[in-house]
This record gives sequence, structure tokens and C-alpha cells, in this order.
Amino acid sequence: MSTRTLIRGGLVVTAAEETHADVLIEDGRIAALAASGTAAAGTWTAERVVDATDKYVIPGGVDAHTHMEFPFGGTFSSDTFETGTRAAAWGGTTTIVDFAVQSKGKALRAGLDAWHAKADGNCAIDYAFHMIVSDVNEATLKQMDGLIEEGVSSFKLFMAYPGVFYSDDGQILRAMQRAGENGGLIMMHAENGIAIDVLVEQALARGQTDPRYHGEVRKALLEAEATHRAIKLAQVAGAPLYVVHVSAREAVAELTRARDEGLPVFGETCPQYLFLSTDNLAEPDFEGAKYVCSTPLRPQEHQAALWRGLRTNDLQVVSTDHCPFCFSGQKELGRGDFSKIPNGMPGVEHRMDLLHQAVVDGHISRRRWIEIACATPARMFGLYPKKGTIAPGADADVVIYDPHAEQTLSAATHHMNVDYSAYEGKRLTGRVETVLSRGEPVITAREFTGRAGHGAYLARGTCQYLD
Amino acid sequence: MSTRTLIRGGLVVTAAEETHADVLIEDGRIAALAASGTAAAGTWTAERVVDATDKYVIPGGVDAHTHMEFPFGGTFSSDTFETGTRAAAWGGTTTIVDFAVQSKGKALRAGLDAWHAKADGNCAIDYAFHMIVSDVNEATLKQMDGLIEEGVSSFKLFMAYPGVFYSDDGQILRAMQRAGENGGLIMMHAENGIAIDVLVEQALARGQTDPRYHGEVRKALLEAEATHRAIKLAQVAGAPLYVVHVSAREAVAELTRARDEGLPVFGETCPQYLFLSTDNLAEPDFEGAKYVCSTPLRPQEHQAALWRGLRTNDLQVVSTDHCPFCFSGQKELGRGDFSKIPNGMPGVEHRMDLLHQAVVDGHISRRRWIEIACATPARMFGLYPKKGTIAPGADADVVIYDPHAEQTLSAATHHMNVDYSAYEGKRLTGRVETVLSRGEPVITAREFTGRAGHGAYLARGTCQYLD
Amino acid sequence: MSTRTLIRGGLVVTAAEETHADVLIEDGRIAALAASGTAAAGTWTAERVVDATDKYVIPGGVDAHTHMEFPFGGTFSSDTFETGTRAAAWGGTTTIVDFAVQSKGKALRAGLDAWHAKADGNCAIDYAFHMIVSDVNEATLKQMDGLIEEGVSSFKLFMAYPGVFYSDDGQILRAMQRAGENGGLIMMHAENGIAIDVLVEQALARGQTDPRYHGEVRKALLEAEATHRAIKLAQVAGAPLYVVHVSAREAVAELTRARDEGLPVFGETCPQYLFLSTDNLAEPDFEGAKYVCSTPLRPQEHQAALWRGLRTNDLQVVSTDHCPFCFSGQKELGRGDFSKIPNGMPGVEHRMDLLHQAVVDGHISRRRWIEIACATPARMFGLYPKKGTIAPGADADVVIYDPHAEQTLSAATHHMNVDYSAYEGKRLTGRVETVLSRGEPVITAREFTGRAGHGAYLARGTCQYLD
Amino acid sequence: MSTRTLIRGGLVVTAAEETHADVLIEDGRIAALAASGTAAAGTWTAERVVDATDKYVIPGGVDAHTHMEFPFGGTFSSDTFETGTRAAAWGGTTTIVDFAVQSKGKALRAGLDAWHAKADGNCAIDYAFHMIVSDVNEATLKQMDGLIEEGVSSFKLFMAYPGVFYSDDGQILRAMQRAGENGGLIMMHAENGIAIDVLVEQALARGQTDPRYHGEVRKALLEAEATHRAIKLAQVAGAPLYVVHVSAREAVAELTRARDEGLPVFGETCPQYLFLSTDNLAEPDFEGAKYVCSTPLRPQEHQAALWRGLRTNDLQVVSTDHCPFCFSGQKELGRGDFSKIPNGMPGVEHRMDLLHQAVVDGHISRRRWIEIACATPARMFGLYPKKGTIAPGADADVVIYDPHAEQTLSAATHHMNVDYSAYEGKRLTGRVETVLSRGEPVITAREFTGRAGHGAYLARGTCQYLD
Repeated sequence: MSTRTLIRGGLVVTAAEETHADVLIEDGRIAALAASGTAAAGTWTAERVVDATDKYVIPGGVDAHTHMEFPFGGTFSSDTFETGTRAAAWGGTTTIVDFAVQSKGKALRAGLDAWHAKADGNCAIDYAFHMIVSDVNEATLKQMDGLIEEGVSSFKLFMAYPGVFYSDDGQILRAMQRAGENGGLIMMHAENGIAIDVLVEQALARGQTDPRYHGEVRKALLEAEATHRAIKLAQVAGAPLYVVHVSAREAVAELTRARDEGLPVFGETCPQYLFLSTDNLAEPDFEGAKYVCSTPLRPQEHQAALWRGLRTNDLQVVSTDHCPFCFSGQKELGRGDFSKIPNGMPGVEHRMDLLHQAVVDGHISRRRWIEIACATPARMFGLYPKKGTIAPGADADVVIYDPHAEQTLSAATHHMNVDYSAYEGKRLTGRVETVLSRGEPVITAREFTGRAGHGAYLARGTCQYLD
Repeated sequence: MSTRTLIRGGLVVTAAEETHADVLIEDGRIAALAASGTAAAGTWTAERVVDATDKYVIPGGVDAHTHMEFPFGGTFSSDTFETGTRAAAWGGTTTIVDFAVQSKGKALRAGLDAWHAKADGNCAIDYAFHMIVSDVNEATLKQMDGLIEEGVSSFKLFMAYPGVFYSDDGQILRAMQRAGENGGLIMMHAENGIAIDVLVEQALARGQTDPRYHGEVRKALLEAEATHRAIKLAQVAGAPLYVVHVSAREAVAELTRARDEGLPVFGETCPQYLFLSTDNLAEPDFEGAKYVCSTPLRPQEHQAALWRGLRTNDLQVVSTDHCPFCFSGQKELGRGDFSKIPNGMPGVEHRMDLLHQAVVDGHISRRRWIEIACATPARMFGLYPKKGTIAPGADADVVIYDPHAEQTLSAATHHMNVDYSAYEGKRLTGRVETVLSRGEPVITAREFTGRAGHGAYLARGTCQYLD
Repeated sequence: MSTRTLIRGGLVVTAAEETHADVLIEDGRIAALAASGTAAAGTWTAERVVDATDKYVIPGGVDAHTHMEFPFGGTFSSDTFETGTRAAAWGGTTTIVDFAVQSKGKALRAGLDAWHAKADGNCAIDYAFHMIVSDVNEATLKQMDGLIEEGVSSFKLFMAYPGVFYSDDGQILRAMQRAGENGGLIMMHAENGIAIDVLVEQALARGQTDPRYHGEVRKALLEAEATHRAIKLAQVAGAPLYVVHVSAREAVAELTRARDEGLPVFGETCPQYLFLSTDNLAEPDFEGAKYVCSTPLRPQEHQAALWRGLRTNDLQVVSTDHCPFCFSGQKELGRGDFSKIPNGMPGVEHRMDLLHQAVVDGHISRRRWIEIACATPARMFGLYPKKGTIAPGADADVVIYDPHAEQTLSAATHHMNVDYSAYEGKRLTGRVETVLSRGEPVITAREFTGRAGHGAYLARGTCQYLD
Repeated sequence: MSTRTLIRGGLVVTAAEETHADVLIEDGRIAALAASGTAAAGTWTAERVVDATDKYVIPGGVDAHTHMEFPFGGTFSSDTFETGTRAAAWGGTTTIVDFAVQSKGKALRAGLDAWHAKADGNCAIDYAFHMIVSDVNEATLKQMDGLIEEGVSSFKLFMAYPGVFYSDDGQILRAMQRAGENGGLIMMHAENGIAIDVLVEQALARGQTDPRYHGEVRKALLEAEATHRAIKLAQVAGAPLYVVHVSAREAVAELTRARDEGLPVFGETCPQYLFLSTDNLAEPDFEGAKYVCSTPLRPQEHQAALWRGLRTNDLQVVSTDHCPFCFSGQKELGRGDFSKIPNGMPGVEHRMDLLHQAVVDGHISRRRWIEIACATPARMFGLYPKKGTIAPGADADVVIYDPHAEQTLSAATHHMNVDYSAYEGKRLTGRVETVLSRGEPVITAREFTGRAGHGAYLARGTCQYLD
């Protein structure tokens, strides 16, 4: 028997429209929208009625880049799928796409299975997987086809991290060629890791061991170089390309140049690059370690290029690259050697709010907020139209968002399993009030009313962004 | 008492979504959308039910650039508001924005009144006006403010046509400054008319009088030059800019460069630049005159840049610049002197179909079709959300579009009041079947069921494109 | 009977070579160069022997842009051809190309005659003329051909100064077309004067009357715009283009873009743009008026682009645009209205020294110094190989330059007829010691030994820069 | 006792000047130049007088890129230093810079010694060495310093040929950093060899074994990619960069972009890229193998970008990359597998003539011919002012060039030790008549009058191009 939920009186904001409409949910899906006050809306009844007067009714966020329980540098990121997806829900995100990792020499499938074992039954919201391919060879290329059939349609490669995740240009080219044929989307960590490792070694040899040197050795020019190289390889392969965590203005310029030529090249950035900078990395007493991630934070003057890129669609997606490590015990592994600091920052909880702040600050429009945080990641990774919008037939992943509420970010109040906040004390306007996942209330008037295991695995289709 | 119309079973395509949904219309507006087959949809009843099975349900087209009964070169464009809007309706366009003209030395208001006199009571579909400012001075700058209040929020200036519509760079700068303050949008015909007139005179002196010389003297570089100049003037003025009928790849490049810098600069192109070329201008026996318009048709190799611009949003709008002159009696005024050929082509009827063909041909996606032809022109010119989308609360301007029907364009069958077709014999896949304007059937299963006078004047708001 | 001069022991520096060589002068021309210490050099004798040990032996400077006795804003620039060329000689410049002015409605020839009347018999060094065309029409276009025959092969047009020197784009196009045929070179003052006049009027209306507003209203973007426009018009005309006094980095970018496309487009800058800035224009107590010239001084950060352009040959020439007006009585005409300040700065005496300082500072190489200050201006304006180099057969315009001497620039010590120095107190390394003009000593060990009337008029050939 | 040679009556053409001058040679060096007809010239006497009336007197060519007796693909290039330098002399080249090769695991010095053993005592003209570094490590980095001291100041690295000469990006960065410190110049073979090897393998697997596939797999985009990467690495290292054998327009575009930013980046191209194309590679019956070299020949439409680059100095040098392999027995190694065709083409004899043809054809000026073929390679590689010009003090490497003579290139008449000509039957205007090397006649009125062993090893200084 069906359960109906009715959201009344809000301003429904999607990537395309801002509509005063009532939203009717049946069986976990958006059944209908009706203009507020119409006869059609007037006839609706429901078991559960949510009053959204003076609130926004927006699609649940889609965070296309998270790393829960991720092994890195001899430790694991501190959020499990349970804690991480709960925190995501608190922040208005109802879908994550996490990264399963192929162990070198093993099958892609084995890596996927391992990640299912971590996630299945533990998530508060829906989840899907990209696959990190550590080892591109004839066998794994063939396995890519199979994974796409099963709903894992995007494959991450690394031009950084030699000896760990690194693929050489020949492997990258082969994987791109395969993706050009089977519809997969190659996601690229674009930094010239071979060159960076030289600079790391030289910095350490000079006694430059503080966290801020992490930002100095991972040079913007080496991000731009790798970005350009990935673009040219994709062009040779005849495949689209998605560049993750773009942080340097010079890298944005490469994406812009490619798009000006009409190439199917896409870029993602993250809130940390939009709101933080090398000033944070330079915080004393090893506090800078909290901000160590790769690509690294850049000097503040890079931010304008990122905002510009987001506005004119040379960047399409904002994800979090959520990969938290506690300051105590984890980040501290790198005291005296910045290269041993686990790379990653917490963020899955704050993306929707920080981007709403960008609306308040005039960087982006309200609709663009939803586009870069919900609709485009869903389209990019084959989750549309189930996710990323509020439209008849879509999953009822809906957030009631109070645009006027004030909040202050803090480790004391956040829900991620990590002992610090990268935004400690930052004041924001706007806050999530209620979150539905497939019609079920996960956050209800700022109480967690969800449960581990509600979240379902999402078999994804292929990239729909150009459809 | 309300009249309800229900459109069942179609694929609703908007700029953002493709949804199998039923659409309920109350009192001329979209009341609600419900996913096909849901309980919500099942309860709906209506006086009129339209079966849209296997059809697209799309917003009525918004043609932001037409010239009905337009005085040019001693004659008038051959479509009246009655014939022109009827033809528009046949082609699935439910809103036009036409150009009222200020007579030099007279008030803007007088020009607007004159155009109201032509249009009011005669239109089959809704209509609005831009204002051509022939005479930028202190008085007319002040009048701009007033017109915006009354719903005329966009002002066209010409860098071409010295002595007629031409404004110099100082006038342009002043108008842009004013627009920067009052929210108006400057629309620019960007060709260096002063330089072109020199080339015209020289060509005629050399005996080069055939229509194809129209294309040779109005050089792509002089369109690009003016485009760049308009951009720089807008940048100095701190105002947005909308460049009309972009045809040259070099002009697209200037828009691209501006957008790469983050400037609020927009570009429109037209079907004739996407589907026709200088090959047409060179047709023998003065047939080339049929294709004389300004900016002129370009060599075919320019088309790729236009399509690329439309795909990556360096061009935002496709309008028609519909300005028909009969071959017999009008175009013939320029026999022996191409500069006397009235500038303009018929097109208001075919825009939606030609752009659907672009979808079929793979140039653009289905959603992008609706975006460039309906949603963006509506937003750009302050008609949103009434026009340009199918969403709760919007005007029920809806087209039932058969994507599989075949048709052949011809003067023998078209509905525009002009004695030739620029696309004679061109075969297209896709055809308008039924058109509603504010819920009223204007075209019903390919019969005209509308009437002159149904169309209402639309007082527009200011540009919403960046909202 | 011949007179021989022998310059022994110096380092001969030209645009191409640095050679320890003795230079033998016969009859006012360079007869021979011999490597120091060779048997060939050992046999040479001469009436006059100059010891250049530890000195540079360089070609006399060619200043391709001066305005002696120039009428502007109701007054005349304060250097006559006598005082101005004497000052030039003091500074190591042995050739100037000044600008004859066509009076509107009169023949070019009449203007040239008028300038001959000012200069002939009065100059200490050789001189030539460009022609300012105030009035482009069929008559003056024809007259251009004749002037080229007589040695005036370059024609300056203005996109600035409406109502005075301004030409519209049609006139510019016609003049360029003519130059494309007759071998003339169009020199362009590239600023959008029509737009600037609007900004001037608005600034004055706001009470912004101080000299610094001169810099604010003549916007860098409007220099870049006009530069781009001139380039496109030249491209349409199929003619080369020489842009005078480039000051804005955005204008350099336009020249760079054109050169990247292979267009024959050239740019000149001046020492004031390389060494001074809007900081000077903002000097209090109306002192900023000393620095009022057009194009205006720019913020300091523009200088890097100019130096880069000079290094990689996107800028080819450094001239002075010497056009001095006394602070007292002349610049003061603009107290209370910056637009009435006569436009121009003194500089003919300091160009060679300031550019040597640029060598010392590492901005350019020693050879590039000679190239941009001597060789290229000579080639550009058809004076090669007589001027601009030290090579067998060239005119013996030679400077013995002491690279180690120190000097301080000051109105108290300079030789220009103007009551202030734009570089008051500036310390430089390097100084002219001796100057020969066609073998005659004009400056001898820092004494003026020349005379008014020594300087001869130079009938120039056409541009040789691309030969 | 000194020997004097006097060259009378020619037009002396250097990179900077065209002078009618007599040239006096003493002791193998240019002693003096005197304007023809001057008293100074009239007094000169000499043991040997060469009449150069109606001829050009030009500096001997400097070919900065040759491979004599070069091991490649299991064979050796077919010219020894004896045959190759003799052929060079026939073509007016008086200096070559060849490449010594470090064997992996051995010292740079050992490689240099091996090349000295091949060359010393065998050359007809002067010669110098670059060093190919096969193995960048701490030891070889230190050895670079020593080699610079001894006159080997340039070091070639390969981004192509994995497993053979290939260096990874870390090695490249380290070598560039070292060069940034010790004044060395890194020369780069810029092709993404890792990616190319994948394409080679795939082509062969598809049965695409003909020579033309060599051109298809070595894609222009992969040359552009590597060029961009090398530029970015050099920028990070703070070092200049010299890119060898640039062939693709996309690579030229990368160099142009770098130079527009003011980076010290230089590019060399070769006659084969200017005059031949993929049409040659596609010649039937395996004839295409004659044109197999890397970077490969490109489609004809790339040539315009190379000529433009040469004109506006985005390319600075034309070398030959002379590396001949006989068609019979050597090129044939690759029948049935294009990847086994030895890479390289003969050319050392024809560079000066082909570039003179470019003067005749209007691609470049006469002075630019000398600049790119003589003066700049000499400056770039520390041979100035001994080589590359005709100036007092320079080595008397002089060519008497007949600009009017006609010749037809052919294997039947050329002097290179290779059984085919890449330009068989090509007619040229202009021919070398007489060649002096340090004053000694090597070619006398088209007779070889030189001898193996005359040529001396040249210890080079560091790059002087930016001096």
C-alpha cells in the first residue's frame, strides 16, 4: 500500500526552475507537482504533510566524490559508510558516489566486492561506486565493460602517486580508448606525480618538512600540465574526460581552452578550493596538516578563476573529495615529514551549505547551486532522472532548506567522525531542515530520523551529461 | 469557471528535464505535472484531453527576434502581425518579441505606440517588444527608464547602417551605461557599418552588383571587429550585452574570449546561419537575393563554430530575425545594385523544426533544443517563468510535437506571407501537431484553430538569465 | 678631398653584433671596420682619431616619433627644431622623424611645406617627416602617392581626438587600402576617442578635474579596443600597420594576438610607459599635469607586458613621442580642467640613456637596445642602411657611449627647452660622450660642437622591416 | 706569416645587414670589411682574391642537429663524419653540432670520448657536440657541469623512445634544474613516446605496417602534448628550453603561447617539415620509408604554421636532423613493420639551398635566411661570434653564393653517402659556389678542395641567444 507525502508551500528550486509548487510523493517517488493554490493542488491529501512555507524545496545533494573507510598512507579515512552517510544526510546530501579500489594484481570485481562489503547495509542514504583502476592491462580493460553493465560506469585514474595508484600515459590512453567504446567515463586525478615526487624529495632534503611545503611542491603548473596532457590523451582516444578536484587557475585555463575547442571535457572542484587557501596550510603548530589534500589548496587569488569557471560552465560539478583523517593520530603521522600526512579533508556534511553561502555572496545563482551540486553530478554519472532533480518520476530525495537560518560550523557540532573542522567558526546563512530519501525522512526538523541500511546501492547508467 | 485541459502520455521535454508526465492545464496555466501512471495522475479529469502518446510535449517557442511590417529600404516586410504570428503558431512558436522603432527626433514612446497600433488585436500568439533606439541622447536615455517600467526592457542599437539606425561609440557607451543602471539589456547589431559602406561603394564602382557581393563586402572580420568593440564598450560601461544574429566564426571567437574572462556577454544566432551559406547567395539569376540579410550568410565552414558555440553556451539563443520580403517586387528592388536589396529573410515558421532537425543530426541534445529556442530567450528577455518552460504556474503555451513525422519545406505549403522559401525542398524529420497558447488551441492536429487577437501583449521584466 | 676619422678600441655594438673593432670613416660614411689588432686595422690612419677604449661604439639613435613646434590645444610644443634636435644630439640621437600636419581642407603638400619651413636650416642632426593626415578624401589619398615618391612614406591617423585629427573607420580603411597599394605605412594613434570624450565630459561634470582623471577616462580597454579595430581594418585592407605609443597591457595583448596569426602589425612604445605610471599622474599640486600625454601613463603593473613585448618582438620600436610643454604657462592651461592640459611630455634627450638603464637592469640585452632604438626604427621607416647601424657604407652617425658613467636627470642640466624633467632626480648608469653625425662631431666629449643647419632632410624609402 | 684572402665585390648578407663590401681575411679570421669602392678597400691586397661580383657573401651555415655514424635500430646512419662533413661543405655548411650518446650506465664522458674517436681527424669542417643523456641520475647530473666546462653545453633528452633514450618527467625536471644552475641548455625531443608506443602496437596488430602508419601513430597532438609538458617542466625548473624538430602546427601553437608569456623557450624545425609531407610517406612500394623520421612528416597544411613561426620568431632555428639510412639494406629493415624502419633522413647538404628557395618563394627574407641557418644556431649553442656571421674577428667561414644559378637535387649528384634523395628532381634557384672554412677553401668554384681532418673540434660556450 502506498504512502503519500505532501510538501506544501515551498519554493521548489531545481537546476532549471524556481516554482511555487506543492510536491506530492507516492511510493518514494515524486508523483506530481502542482502550482500552489491551484485546484489540482487543492485536492491532494497525504499521510504526511510537510509545511515548507518560506523554505526552499530542493533535490537532495549528489556528492560524486567521497572516500569512506579509504586506505591511504597506512591508515583509513575516519568516516565509515555509516558515519559518513549520516553526516552527508545532515548536510542535505542524499546520494554519494564513493570509490571502490582495485588492488594491484587483482580483478576490478574483487575491489568492488570489497567496497560493497563495507557499504552494504550501513548507509543512511543511497550510494554508488566509481572504480579506481590501479592496474590497467588487458584483463582489467575487459573487466571495465562488465562493470559498466553492472552499474559502475566511471573509472578513476591517477597521474599522481607513482608506485601507488599511478598509471602511465600508455595505460591512460588504453583506458580512455576503452571508455570511448564502452561508454565509460574516465575520471582523472591530474597532477604530474613523477615531477612532484622529485620536488618532494628535494624539499625534504632541504629540511622543508612543514605542511605548507605540501602546497609548494605540488605546483599549480604541474596540475595544469597534467590536465592538458589528460585532455590531449582523451582527444587522441576520442573519449570524454572528467577531471576531479580542479584547484589551480592554470588548470581551469586548460579546461577552458579545451571547451572552447568543443571537446567533451569536464571539471569538478570542491568547496575547500573555493573557500580555503594556502594561508590555511601555513597555519602554525602543524595545524596546516588539517588542510593537506591533493590537489592542494592554492593561494586565494586562484579562487576567482574557479568561480568564473563554475559560472560559465567550464567547471560543471562541485563535489567534496571527502576523505577525513583525524588530526590526532592520523594527520600527526606526518609531523616532521609533510609527505607522510594522510591526504584528505572532511567535507561531505558542508557542501550544500557552503554553496548556498556562495549564492548569498553572489558568486552563483540559486539555480546554478542546484545544478552543480545535484543535477549535473547526477547526469554526469548516470543517475538521472532518479537523482538530482524534483520532477515527476524522480526519486523523492528532497531537502527542505531554510535560506534564512544562521549556523556556525564547528567540530563540536558536526556529525562527521573526525576531530576537527576545516571551517571551524565559519558563519553561514542557510541550513538544512528536513531531508527525505526516497520519501523517507532521514532528517526531520534537524533530528536524525534515518537509519543505517536505508540507503540502497545504485547501479548507474553511463554519462548522460551530453544527452 | 475554469476550463481544464489534460495532455496525457507524452514525453515532456524542457530545457532541464525529459519526463513521462501528464500535464494539467487550468485557466490557461500549467497547473500540475504528474508522472504517467501514478495515482495522482489517475484522478485527473478535464474538459479537453489531448493524447500525446509517442509525442513530445514541449514549451511553445519564444522567438526573440522578429520584424513584422518592418520598414526597410523603402518597403515593408511582407508579414503583418496577423500573418506573421499565425505562421509562427504553425511552427510551434507561441511568443514573439518584435522590434518597435524610434523615429529619429521623436520619442521612444511614439515608436512604441506605433508598433502597438500595428500589433494590438491582430496577433494569434502573445507578443512583446524590444525598442530600436535610432537616436541616443539625453532625452531618449531618460525615456529608456520609463519603457523598462512598462515592460520594454531591451534596446537595440546598430553599429551598422550609418545614417539610418547607426549609433556611434559614444552613443553606444551612454546607452550601455544607462542599461547598467536601469537593468535594461542592450542588443547589438555588430557590424562595422562605416567600413562596410566603403566596401559597398567600391564594389558597386567595380560593377560588382550581384547579390553575392552583399556577402563579400560585409566581411566576417568586420563583424568580429564590431563584436569585440561592443564587448569592450559594455565592459567599460559595466553592462551586459546581447549580440544579435552572430554569423561569423571570428565573431563567435570574440564572444568566447569574453566569456572566458567571465563577462556577461551573450550571443544569438539564427537558423539561416546554421543551415545556409554563401553558396545560396551565389545562386544565379538573382536568386541569391532571397538570401540577402545582415549579418550575411557565411561560407559553410563557419557553421561548425556556431554549432560548437551553441553546444558549450558561448551562444545562448536561436532566433529567426524573421524579416520577409517577397522576391517579386521587393527583393527585385536591388537588381543591378545589391545594396538596394531589402535585407531580411522569412523564417519564423521553421525555427523549431530546423532545430529539431539539428537534434536528429546530432548537433545538439533534445534539452538543448528547448533551452536555446524556448527557455533561454524567455529568461533573457524577462518572460520567465510564464514562457519558455512547462512547469507549474507557467502559461500553458504548449506544443505537441511529433518527432517522427516527415515534412518538406516549401513556399507552396508554408504560412508566411512571402512568395518563396529559403529552404525550398528541404526535408525534415519532426513536425508540430498541436499548439496551445495559454491553454487555447491555436493549431489543432495541423488545423489552424486560433484567431487574430487572441495574442496578448506581454509586459516584460528585465533580463533573468543570470538569476 | 676626403676627411677620415678613426674610432679605435671600442666595442662596436649593433642590433646584431658586438665586435671589438676599429671604425674608419671616410666622407661622412662608415668606410670600414677592422678587428682590433689586425694588420688591416694597423695600417689605418686618419685626420681625426677618437679613442673609444672601454666605451661602446653604437649607431646614433633614430627617434621615429617627435613633435617639435607642434600646435596642440592652442599652444605649441616648446622645443623648436633647433632646440629639440640639439637636445636629441646630447642624448645620442642623430635622426628624428617628426610629424608634418595637414591642415583640414588643405593639401598634404602644404602641410609638408610648412614643416620644412620650420625645420630646414635649423636642425643639428638629420631629420625626416611623417605626415599627419587630418582629412582623408579622394584628393589626399592621391597625394599620398606623391609624398611617398618624395620621401614621406608614413602617414599617421588618429582614432582619438574627434573633431581635430580624428578619422572615422571608413577613412581609415581607405587610407590603409591606399597604403597597401603604394607601399605607405599607416601609423595609428589607437584610442577610441569617441567613447573617451563621453567619459571626459562625465568626469568633468562630476567635478573630477585633476590631472589624474586624464588617466582614468582614457581607459586601457579603449586603447585595446582601438588597437584591435585598427588591426582588423588593416587586415581587411591588406596593409601593414604601425601602432604608436602603446601603453596598455591589453593593447600589447592585441598586437601579440595579431602577430601570432602572422599579420604584419607593429607596435611602438615610449620610455614614459616603461618608467613612469599613474602614480606620477596623481602627484599633488597639479604636478601630475607634467605627465599628461595620450595614450596616458598606466598603472605600474602594465610595464611588465611592455618589457615582455619588447623582448619577444611583439613591440618593435621605442620612440619618445617628444612633445614638451612648459609646466608654467602651458600645462597650467588645464588647471581646473584636465582636458585642457596640452598632451605631451619631453623626452627626446633621454631615450638612449633610459634604454641603456634597461640593459643594466636586465630588461633587455645590449643588442636589443640598439635594435629597438636605432636599427628597427630605421628599417621601419625606410632609412636603412644609411641610419641605424654601423656597417660599411652607412652614414657615420656614431655615438661613443660610456657604459660606466653615472648621471642624474634634471631640468637643471638637460638641454630640452622645457622647464621640468619628467625624470627629475633619476639616477642612471651610462652616458653619451661623443656623437658624430655623418662623421661630423656634434657632441665632443660632452661639449656641443654641432650647429643648427648641419642636419639634413632625409627623403625616406618605404618600410624595409619585412625585407 | 699570415695569409690574406680578399673577397671583392659581393653583397655581404648577414642576419642583420646587406652590405656591398669587400671582406679581408687574415689568418683564418675576418679581419675587416670595407664598403666597396672606398679608399680603405682600395688599399687592400691579398695572396688570394675571390671575385664575388653578383654573388652573395654569406656566413657558412651552422647545422646544429646532425647524426653522423649514429646507432639506431640495429644499424648506423650511413654518413661518417668524413662523408657527412664533406657533403655539408658542398652545401655551404661549415659547422655541424652532432650528438654524442651516453651509453646507459656509463659516464657521459665515455660517450663523448667515443664520438671524438669517430670524428677527430675526419671532418672537412668544424664540428662540436651536444650530449644525449640516456640516463639522468645523480652521477650524470654532476657530469653535466664538467662537460659544460669542456665545451659541451647542451644536453638532449627524449620524451620518445621508451626503453632506449626515454627520460621520465622526474629525470627531465632534474636535468632542467641542473641546466638552470650550470648554464646548460636542454634540448628536447618532444613526443609522448609512451602513448605513441601503444598506438604503434595497435596499428601493427591491425595489420597497418606500411610506412604511412608511422605518420599516423605519431600524432600531432602527442607532439603538442609533449611540447607543452616540456615547457611546463622547464618553467618549474626555471630553465630555458630548446625543442628540436618541431613539425606540428599544434606544437608551434604551444611554443607561441609560451613565448607570449615571455618564457625562454625556443624551437627548431627542419627543411623536411617545410617542404615534404605525409604525401611522401604515403608513396607506394615502400618508397614512403625514405621519409620516415621522428617527429614525422605532417600533412601539408601544417607548413603554414611553421613558416609563420619562422617569420615571427616563435621558431628560431632550422637544422637538418641529418640522419641518413640507405633505402637498400637499411630502410628495408622495416618492410612489413614500419616501426623497424630506421628513423632519419639525409639533408645536411641541402639546408642552405632549400632555405634560399624559401627566400625566392617569399616565405622569409634574405636576412632571416642567414639568421635561422647561421647566426641563431651559433648564438644558441655558444659558438658566437666565431661562427654564424661575417664580422671583424669572426672565423672566416664564408660562402660565395650564386643566387641565380639553377640546380636540380638528385641522389645522382649529391655528396651524402646515401642511395636516395628525399628531394629527387626538385629544382632550386641558388647554389653554393665557393666555401671557406677558417679562410681555407673547402669548395672552390664547385670543386672539393678541402680535406678530412681540416675540421677542428669546437669547444662551445653556453647559450648566448638571450645575451
